[in-house]
Amino acid sequence: MSTRLRIDCGYEGTQFFGWGIQPSHPSVQASLEIALGIVLRLDKKSFQTVVAGRTDAGVHALAQVFHVDLPEDFHLSDAALRALPRRLQGALGTDAISVHHVALAPPGFDARFSALSRTYEYRIADLAARKNPLHRKFSVVSPYRLDEQRMNELGVALLGLHDWAAFCRPRVAATTIRKLQSFSWIRNAEGVLIATVKADAFCRSMVRSLVGSAVAVGRGKITVDDVARVREQKARVSQWPVMPAKGLTLVSIEYPPEADMAQQALDTRARRTLTSD
Amino acid sequence: MSTRLRIDCGYEGTQFFGWGIQPSHPSVQASLEIALGIVLRLDKKSFQTVVAGRTDAGVHALAQVFHVDLPEDFHLSDAALRALPRRLQGALGTDAISVHHVALAPPGFDARFSALSRTYEYRIADLAARKNPLHRKFSVVSPYRLDEQRMNELGVALLGLHDWAAFCRPRVAATTIRKLQSFSWIRNAEGVLIATVKADAFCRSMVRSLVGSAVAVGRGKITVDDVARVREQKARVSQWPVMPAKGLTLVSIEYPPEADMAQQALDTRARRTLTSD
Repeated sequence: MSTRLRIDCGYEGTQFFGWGIQPSHPSVQASLEIALGIVLRLDKKSFQTVVAGRTDAGVHALAQVFHVDLPEDFHLSDAALRALPRRLQGALGTDAISVHHVALAPPGFDARFSALSRTYEYRIADLAARKNPLHRKFSVVSPYRLDEQRMNELGVALLGLHDWAAFCRPRVAATTIRKLQSFSWIRNAEGVLIATVKADAFCRSMVRSLVGSAVAVGRGKITVDDVARVREQKARVSQWPVMPAKGLTLVSIEYPPEADMAQQALDTRARRTLTSD
Repeated sequence: MSTRLRIDCGYEGTQFFGWGIQPSHPSVQASLEIALGIVLRLDKKSFQTVVAGRTDAGVHALAQVFHVDLPEDFHLSDAALRALPRRLQGALGTDAISVHHVALAPPGFDARFSALSRTYEYRIADLAARKNPLHRKFSVVSPYRLDEQRMNELGVALLGLHDWAAFCRPRVAATTIRKLQSFSWIRNAEGVLIATVKADAFCRSMVRSLVGSAVAVGRGKITVDDVARVREQKARVSQWPVMPAKGLTLVSIEYPPEADMAQQALDTRARRTLTSD
């Protein structure tokens, strides 16, 4: 059996065209696969990476997780495994990607399918917030004062298992049924609004569309009931914007205890197949 | 009498060669003076800016203050004053500098000489800290675990009115006598070490040299007593490094109540003259 590694990392997404490899554009995945190839002296075609949260262009990650299967005949010594984070970081040649942890994956672990949920944050500096030029690459500015109480009312109203087609960029034969577990707003010490959004999984552009609906509600353009009603139309809408990528950061991937990794991966695969994702 | 404006701003210092204008290098002061000239339709030579905290190349500021004296014959309407922050921000053409506030200066106000003190923060991610690629432009990484308790012991031991020549880049006929009011360390939720350093004023490279001495103490290379002893030599030393600029951020300038601005400026000027600064 081949060796599977679990790698934890983070990145500032500004300069990347997202996680996934794209022809002739820099991506986080391509950068990491090139670095892995150099450090392990492997041909890039001889291994593959699978990621937990496939972030779009410009989206950041503080705690991304991916796995990589090394070729059958490849032997990784304990010493080489211990040195891997530091050597990988060196081969990356940038601190825009940060390698946090490398370990042998527990039995049955799948970075994507073993994950129970994904948690994102979204940052908005509105009129009540102190402008911080150090945070400009990962927060968006709102020219309107936003009412976080209303935005929190929306968050509570939207929770649960629903069809989110109204919030998603359509993909053929992919399910848009997801369970939204958290959608809440706080103001930090600087007055910046920070959303925490958690679900079992997200379809494309869903987090940024959810945040867009909250901004429309926070400005008083539409009501909580309007958003709930539009969701029931189950088709892509234009009542609110998809917010810019730079405000969005993947902050954690939640996994079950090690003993349950394999079963969780089987369960997720079965559910996704039923719903054609 | 000409009109004096007080302008509050912030900036990410990465791309600038410091606050002060330098021939053929981008500076924060030059960027702001060009923008002021455009917005007020004034020749750059017809006005001057005076800053509270003259930051070095690569140093950031969340709350910098400067004043500008408009030409004698220049009339600024109330409407033009109100529109100034937005128009100045537009003319800057970058969000690396953020204009926070523009107001008529109170009588006797001098951005530099009315200031009671300056407060800086310095950020270090050591082995105990979670690496955050979003913060890489304004924190430095330490490959050693640092003992914040010892660093806080040093902070307390160094407080007070002293000659800081051992910590300063020498300048002819300039005083190095300063009153250090705070020098303390905390670890934030991510485990990052943050120093708060406050004094009536700082001589050149003083904050970064103070932090360098704390890092040497935190690593166990030298003791608190060693640093105190070296300070008494009153000459530039090499027992510890001057830390990189990017970890340093000016976080506030403290001023007296409005009624005391003029007297404070007179007092500071008198003291600086006595000590040849």
